[in-house]
Amino acid sequence: MAIDFTLTPAQRALQLDARSFAKEVLADARAAESLATPEERFLATKPTYEAMVAAGYLRKCIPAPAGGENAGLVDLAILAEEFYSVNPSVTLTMLGTVLGLLPILLGGSPEQCGRLLGPFLKKSGAPLAGFCSSEPGGSANAASPPPGEGVRTTAKRVGENWIIDGRKKWVSSATGWDRKGADVLCVVCRTDPVAPPEKAISIIAVEGPARGIVFERAINAIGHRAHLVPQFAFQNVTTPQRNLLGQEGGGLALGTAAFTATAALVGIFGVALMRAAFDDTLHFARTEKRGGVHPIIGHQAVGYALADAKTTIEAARALSWRACHALDTQSPAAAELAVQAKIFGSEAAVRVITDLMRVVGIDSYDHEAPFGRLLQDALALPIFDGGNMGVRRRQLHAMFMQPDYDPLAACGAA
Amino acid sequence: MAIDFTLTPAQRALQLDARSFAKEVLADARAAESLATPEERFLATKPTYEAMVAAGYLRKCIPAPAGGENAGLVDLAILAEEFYSVNPSVTLTMLGTVLGLLPILLGGSPEQCGRLLGPFLKKSGAPLAGFCSSEPGGSANAASPPPGEGVRTTAKRVGENWIIDGRKKWVSSATGWDRKGADVLCVVCRTDPVAPPEKAISIIAVEGPARGIVFERAINAIGHRAHLVPQFAFQNVTTPQRNLLGQEGGGLALGTAAFTATAALVGIFGVALMRAAFDDTLHFARTEKRGGVHPIIGHQAVGYALADAKTTIEAARALSWRACHALDTQSPAAAELAVQAKIFGSEAAVRVITDLMRVVGIDSYDHEAPFGRLLQDALALPIFDGGNMGVRRRQLHAMFMQPDYDPLAACGAA
Amino acid sequence: MAIDFTLTPAQRALQLDARSFAKEVLADARAAESLATPEERFLATKPTYEAMVAAGYLRKCIPAPAGGENAGLVDLAILAEEFYSVNPSVTLTMLGTVLGLLPILLGGSPEQCGRLLGPFLKKSGAPLAGFCSSEPGGSANAASPPPGEGVRTTAKRVGENWIIDGRKKWVSSATGWDRKGADVLCVVCRTDPVAPPEKAISIIAVEGPARGIVFERAINAIGHRAHLVPQFAFQNVTTPQRNLLGQEGGGLALGTAAFTATAALVGIFGVALMRAAFDDTLHFARTEKRGGVHPIIGHQAVGYALADAKTTIEAARALSWRACHALDTQSPAAAELAVQAKIFGSEAAVRVITDLMRVVGIDSYDHEAPFGRLLQDALALPIFDGGNMGVRRRQLHAMFMQPDYDPLAACGAA
Amino acid sequence: MAIDFTLTPAQRALQLDARSFAKEVLADARAAESLATPEERFLATKPTYEAMVAAGYLRKCIPAPAGGENAGLVDLAILAEEFYSVNPSVTLTMLGTVLGLLPILLGGSPEQCGRLLGPFLKKSGAPLAGFCSSEPGGSANAASPPPGEGVRTTAKRVGENWIIDGRKKWVSSATGWDRKGADVLCVVCRTDPVAPPEKAISIIAVEGPARGIVFERAINAIGHRAHLVPQFAFQNVTTPQRNLLGQEGGGLALGTAAFTATAALVGIFGVALMRAAFDDTLHFARTEKRGGVHPIIGHQAVGYALADAKTTIEAARALSWRACHALDTQSPAAAELAVQAKIFGSEAAVRVITDLMRVVGIDSYDHEAPFGRLLQDALALPIFDGGNMGVRRRQLHAMFMQPDYDPLAACGAA
Repeated sequence: MAIDFTLTPAQRALQLDARSFAKEVLADARAAESLATPEERFLATKPTYEAMVAAGYLRKCIPAPAGGENAGLVDLAILAEEFYSVNPSVTLTMLGTVLGLLPILLGGSPEQCGRLLGPFLKKSGAPLAGFCSSEPGGSANAASPPPGEGVRTTAKRVGENWIIDGRKKWVSSATGWDRKGADVLCVVCRTDPVAPPEKAISIIAVEGPARGIVFERAINAIGHRAHLVPQFAFQNVTTPQRNLLGQEGGGLALGTAAFTATAALVGIFGVALMRAAFDDTLHFARTEKRGGVHPIIGHQAVGYALADAKTTIEAARALSWRACHALDTQSPAAAELAVQAKIFGSEAAVRVITDLMRVVGIDSYDHEAPFGRLLQDALALPIFDGGNMGVRRRQLHAMFMQPDYDPLAACGAA
Repeated sequence: MAIDFTLTPAQRALQLDARSFAKEVLADARAAESLATPEERFLATKPTYEAMVAAGYLRKCIPAPAGGENAGLVDLAILAEEFYSVNPSVTLTMLGTVLGLLPILLGGSPEQCGRLLGPFLKKSGAPLAGFCSSEPGGSANAASPPPGEGVRTTAKRVGENWIIDGRKKWVSSATGWDRKGADVLCVVCRTDPVAPPEKAISIIAVEGPARGIVFERAINAIGHRAHLVPQFAFQNVTTPQRNLLGQEGGGLALGTAAFTATAALVGIFGVALMRAAFDDTLHFARTEKRGGVHPIIGHQAVGYALADAKTTIEAARALSWRACHALDTQSPAAAELAVQAKIFGSEAAVRVITDLMRVVGIDSYDHEAPFGRLLQDALALPIFDGGNMGVRRRQLHAMFMQPDYDPLAACGAA
Repeated sequence: MAIDFTLTPAQRALQLDARSFAKEVLADARAAESLATPEERFLATKPTYEAMVAAGYLRKCIPAPAGGENAGLVDLAILAEEFYSVNPSVTLTMLGTVLGLLPILLGGSPEQCGRLLGPFLKKSGAPLAGFCSSEPGGSANAASPPPGEGVRTTAKRVGENWIIDGRKKWVSSATGWDRKGADVLCVVCRTDPVAPPEKAISIIAVEGPARGIVFERAINAIGHRAHLVPQFAFQNVTTPQRNLLGQEGGGLALGTAAFTATAALVGIFGVALMRAAFDDTLHFARTEKRGGVHPIIGHQAVGYALADAKTTIEAARALSWRACHALDTQSPAAAELAVQAKIFGSEAAVRVITDLMRVVGIDSYDHEAPFGRLLQDALALPIFDGGNMGVRRRQLHAMFMQPDYDPLAACGAA
Repeated sequence: MAIDFTLTPAQRALQLDARSFAKEVLADARAAESLATPEERFLATKPTYEAMVAAGYLRKCIPAPAGGENAGLVDLAILAEEFYSVNPSVTLTMLGTVLGLLPILLGGSPEQCGRLLGPFLKKSGAPLAGFCSSEPGGSANAASPPPGEGVRTTAKRVGENWIIDGRKKWVSSATGWDRKGADVLCVVCRTDPVAPPEKAISIIAVEGPARGIVFERAINAIGHRAHLVPQFAFQNVTTPQRNLLGQEGGGLALGTAAFTATAALVGIFGVALMRAAFDDTLHFARTEKRGGVHPIIGHQAVGYALADAKTTIEAARALSWRACHALDTQSPAAAELAVQAKIFGSEAAVRVITDLMRVVGIDSYDHEAPFGRLLQDALALPIFDGGNMGVRRRQLHAMFMQPDYDPLAACGAA
């Protein structure tokens, strides 16, 4: 119990194992990203994802109390950095599945956990889960009162079941490998048509494949080219009443809790991408002379640009670890730090990779070099998982308006 | 003769005509960018490029004294902004051709101009020219003395001819529509194996198709997806001795002069891309509610982000016009201003488009929206046409070291 | 009538004359800034200000139609840059006086102009005018409807007079050389206690010295150390009814018009301060070796930092000129460009001077060097004359929300 | 032994005690900063410094093995943040004294430690020490070989003594309370006129007051107004031979080690100043309406600016703690992280305070508000303690050029 940055032996082992697995398995799997259509690309990663599951990495992402092997977000950050720096698409498929399970992990009953988590605790298969939050037309104002649309997807109780109707978009892996639905979908929907938003929204699990899940298209996204983000509909999808997660009407709060955990990890995603770009630039600078006498690392402008990049990387890693630890220990500053780690790491990644491209110069503009890919992946970080402008900074703004907000909580006892 | 920003009637007509042409012809031609391979994409733009030529736009880029209809860089900037904001790939094919002709325009004899420019002054066909400067391994140190490689391509005089050997990369359109060579290639090459660089390098015109031009690959670039940037070789390519442009050994100076003119235009390229992104974001902000009650333009954070973007756009346009005018009037500050316009406009474009994506949020990550394309195009600006780190800032640094450098030249008599 | 950046012979003469006057007269007058109290510092500049007036510079700031010799904002920008780069405090005293006259120049009747402008058209004395807008408690929401306070100062009609009551703050030179009031004060005040703000506020001229002007304190400001910004009260100050400027109730619009003109000039203030810092840094870099073998300009990091600074300076100057010209020609984009010039030039100045201090290193932290003074002056630019956060970006935001806003107005016919 | 951000009970007690002491003792002592001359200001802080010493805080800065009570840099960072956020001038006097002792603590023999540290381990008096490194003309190239001047101060062995000659500048507290010299001065000087720099420079302790220390002037610095940074000379100053610290000729390495430890703390200085500015801005935003209906915290632009500031603060604190811990545990990444913490925290402080001034608006420009003072203090951080441009980024550049540099050291086992 002290300010400490020393990895435990278990963490160090996790880091080195993950680094090896990434190098040996995940690196080559990037080839999937050059296939022609989003679905082809996604399907081509299935063997890699299966290998990840088989090697136990999905289990390492699920908390020990729920039957997995994860000891906390700090550990998850260590793992995520290694994987994401090598193959963001497939890593996001795994971590998107973890996000898809978060409403269960955070809000589910023991019965629900036992029943729904089963496929994800095995070391076989390619189980997918999706957190169905975003909708066509945008969800930055999911908590809007009328006449704002807020959450448009509805769930009505009919007999023992919920009947879900609506459309979703940008939900990682949501329609699964076969367009029929991931193994578990946690659906944010309106369960009360008249109550105010903080009492009207619930999260309900749907077990896929499910009749009424209608695939519309796989988004041709700028990055994460081998990861699936579909647009799809729920048309009279039926799910048993017992699949309501947490309190009825407590969906906004549960969703926010899930997205707080992920925020700290997005900071690490940024670190991972910057780290990869830094490594490539450093190698380039040490070996390329660009027609001159010495490797370009000899130029001060090159060295200083690398210095700025590395400084930012270390700041982002320290802040992300700090946020993960705060969440693990339920610090009063946890929510603030998680959002800050997300904002900082995500925007830093875009800026740093862009800057490093300028060190490399025009050859970075060739898709044979990794920079275009890294930047295209990085561009998602500020805008997914709660956009920094429409959601994340708004969260901080709201915290600052709380009368009991304590700016020193983050340097304090917890 | 006064500080004035009023377009002449002719400039205004050029602007509005170009805007119409862009909307009616160039916009749809972006479809070429989704084809599978770089060459397919480039070939698919040929009819559009032919339409550009037929409408007289290539003539409008060639100075009147040389037989075209261009009155100066300011006019070119006005035209370029309209075209580039709608279709950067095809516009770059046209302007890359103009760059390819610049060594002739700046350094050619009347005989050379008359002979070599002919195909480019017609209103038919799809004539291409390329300025063959960059080489595999990089050319930021083209002026390096040994043991730096500097310019690696060589030209030897054999009888009445030059025999050119070497490899080039990133030269717009250089291998032409058929891999056999553009109509004219201005090749930077070493004509003296022992002289110091400022006397050893020359620029020699090659008329394509030419035997010995060996296409190696079309680079799969991050942006400008329907523009051709090949890697290729000159293998014993023969060109007549009279095709030497300017002084023998004066190639570095001639090349620098050409790249000074283009620098001011790259500033406008940045303006064009930012302008397109701004328009789309403004439209989005005025019409999209993202689940809330009002269009998101009502949010102060949205309005302020737009304000920052627009401020940058206007600064970049004013600076680019200023640089173009300085070049047109041979101001002592012209070289400085051209480079500054390039640095400012190019880096601003990347930053502004990135920032505007955050205003739009996750839907900007979908290739159905224009932002990914615009940013991918913008990423080239800081690194092509003389990279900002390896070439352009180095030029400014060199100017500042001149004992007679006058920081006030840019606000002075010319 | 064309895009042109060539100074007319008259403009060039103005520039060079002003540069000489600044060097010969204004430079030494900076000594006033080291005196102990704000009032001592201000009073010590009186002879310099008198010299400025005697040399005709105040006349050169007042439009020709009103009896002065100014031909437009572009000319004013040329003059302001030369003076402000050498002595911001005294220059602001002169230009603050011009701002103080703007409601008269923009909204006054011929009778009012003739009567009130007289002292300012002579080449003798030290006449001062102040635009009394800001109030204690802040005026970013001067246009607020109740229950916001908006403009707190009131004017009541009593017989042939207005009786003004209220307090003002941050008004340049407002209490004059003797605490009794500047020669003319244009006072923003509420003339209708119940009408909505856009009809309730008026601007009324008060001729000083006037009974009831109560000096409270001279603000000890961070910069502009020899310029007077007082806090003071109007206590039953009487001024004749005929001193109402423009329409009764039209004060907000008139005030906004005045602050639009000044905005373009603030951009040039930023240019002036950056230019001074650049000159000093360039000289330092060329002459100082800091213990090494060569002057530090030889370091690439130094050269690149200078390049970034100079690029920003040129962008700011071009944008500011563009804004001044738009105002001079009543371009539809004038309001937008003026605000953008203010935002860009002011924030650039703070950033660039800060960056240049890092090039110089620790010796820039000594008040024997000019950097501290320049930065302390620059810090005002983003926050005075309508703060960039509370006023200026809000203006742009409001423009973008207008249905007929045209983003291309600024590159168009006017 | 794990990634952990929990303060130990002892650290938490240190934090809260220091916070109280700062509030009760250091806050009022800022009044010294408004006195007229640098020396008056410094002398006025003596009672406060004595109170600090009496309360044991100087002892808490000296490592336990050397007789003090400090457990490491993390603890020092906790203490420094509390003090520096309230009174940078006096805090720098204390920490500058600690820096002055670092060559003894890092390189001194037990005998030297015992003899020289004595006065600093008591809880009485106002003992001062200074690390005499910087010289007039600059010391960024202290390691320069000839013909660069490098270190200009010389020490010659004469009998049992060293005779020191030269001039120094910017050394905190170096001339002491009475111009005659601090209690201990560790002087960087050239002990070998011909050897290469890495063998020619040594650090030698001088016990003050000493004959031959000649006070030249107290620098009138932009900030840290009540802290003494003199320019002074050593004229034939005699000190016993046994006062050589560490190896003869090992001065550059010893000096670098000292400045590595301080670098991590400068990061925290930045945090402290940002934190103070954030607190004041938050309070302002929650209470001030600026003429409007609601406190300005209700404006999204205000909330987002606060969000950006707070995000930067947390990143800087996490990185600085990380660097302190790396130094405490002798991590292979310690040197890199310390420099990065310095660069990041120092430049962030200038930027963040500047940005927060814009939230407050024009009232931040009044010295009655704290912002001017905080910014003026912050401006030192990037340029003192090894300037970020001339020294710190150069250090990182040099690390990256080492063939065995490992970018992942900072996320690794230590």
